[in-house]
Amino acid sequence: MNDALKYKIVSLVLAIGLLASLIHLVVSQKQATQPEHKRAAEIVMQNILSRKSVRSYTNRPVSRAQLDTLVRAAMAAPTGMDTRPWKFVVIDDKNAMQQLAAKLPRAKMLAEAQAAIAVCGDMSVLSKDGKPSRNWMLDCSAATENLLLQAEAMGLGAVWTAGYPYPDRMEAIKSALSLPDHIIPLNLIPIGYPKGDPQPKDKYNKDNIHYNKW
Amino acid sequence: MNDALKYKIVSLVLAIGLLASLIHLVVSQKQATQPEHKRAAEIVMQNILSRKSVRSYTNRPVSRAQLDTLVRAAMAAPTGMDTRPWKFVVIDDKNAMQQLAAKLPRAKMLAEAQAAIAVCGDMSVLSKDGKPSRNWMLDCSAATENLLLQAEAMGLGAVWTAGYPYPDRMEAIKSALSLPDHIIPLNLIPIGYPKGDPQPKDKYNKDNIHYNKW
Repeated sequence: MNDALKYKIVSLVLAIGLLASLIHLVVSQKQATQPEHKRAAEIVMQNILSRKSVRSYTNRPVSRAQLDTLVRAAMAAPTGMDTRPWKFVVIDDKNAMQQLAAKLPRAKMLAEAQAAIAVCGDMSVLSKDGKPSRNWMLDCSAATENLLLQAEAMGLGAVWTAGYPYPDRMEAIKSALSLPDHIIPLNLIPIGYPKGDPQPKDKYNKDNIHYNKW
Repeated sequence: MNDALKYKIVSLVLAIGLLASLIHLVVSQKQATQPEHKRAAEIVMQNILSRKSVRSYTNRPVSRAQLDTLVRAAMAAPTGMDTRPWKFVVIDDKNAMQQLAAKLPRAKMLAEAQAAIAVCGDMSVLSKDGKPSRNWMLDCSAATENLLLQAEAMGLGAVWTAGYPYPDRMEAIKSALSLPDHIIPLNLIPIGYPKGDPQPKDKYNKDNIHYNKW
């Protein structure tokens, strides 16, 4: 075989290889970029459907940075008249967690959680009419849902344990966290990496939907 | 130039091309697969931070399938004691939309919205204690946030217009949608593709966060 023929064959093989790589590249690029928006919609929906109440946690630690991300997500929620009538207490000190668990027997899972966040309404934040927000519990509920969804997306487990509207539970949380009178705890959210394999519920029910009027 | 040299050069060029393609392939593959979970967390967070109140809409239609996806997202929210005390009225008929807009002057954007969804509490759904849910407004707020986040992810615009706790607004929505007495409208959410380029607010404020106790 002469040199020319040898290099001709090498060129042919390389050309086929290059062509195959380029085709693969174009196809994968298309998959990655074309329906970018559609993929985001699917990922967001999948996350919403995957969120579940997680009541048991491993001892894998949760960082302050992760907790800050959760609170950042919470503060992106909409609020009536943009009043933002919320405050957040982030608990991640081991001693504080133990004390909290001892004081709140209703939230037993606190004992093995790595952290907790209390979402609270702030009655010192006034609406345009000069009165405390009448929607704080709606605004803080939307904020809590943001927090729970972001926890799910980060592989964390969490669960909404009630404060408001139960006077005894609000009092227990207020006392455990030394909350002043103008701060009302909507809930207390234990957080950690899920133990076991908790599954979400499928709660879709078409009988809950009416079209155009009741 | 003889043939051997020519094909040598061609081989060299092709080899460089193939190598470059393969490197690109490996790198993009790594970006796409390695941190799949991390990317989901980023996409979900980005969507939470991107959600904004959209009050002006184009005339691009919104399909019944899209509206069903939004309601499906809503029904994935957590509810106190798993009571699911919610009902949804989906409005997408042109005439019904016009009538609604005429009856609800506070929600003027209804006139140009393609659809609307009313998220309602159902007082006929009883808790374990045999009484109507005391948390329905919290549960329905979390459901509404799911709906708003999924709308954002799908490129749709929406805005929470209040029903509860304002008696006059609740009455207006109830009458416009012929709601029975046991159904309380938390809100009415106009929906459409955003007109213009509405931007989200950055509402993060570290002063809202306390650590371990107040």
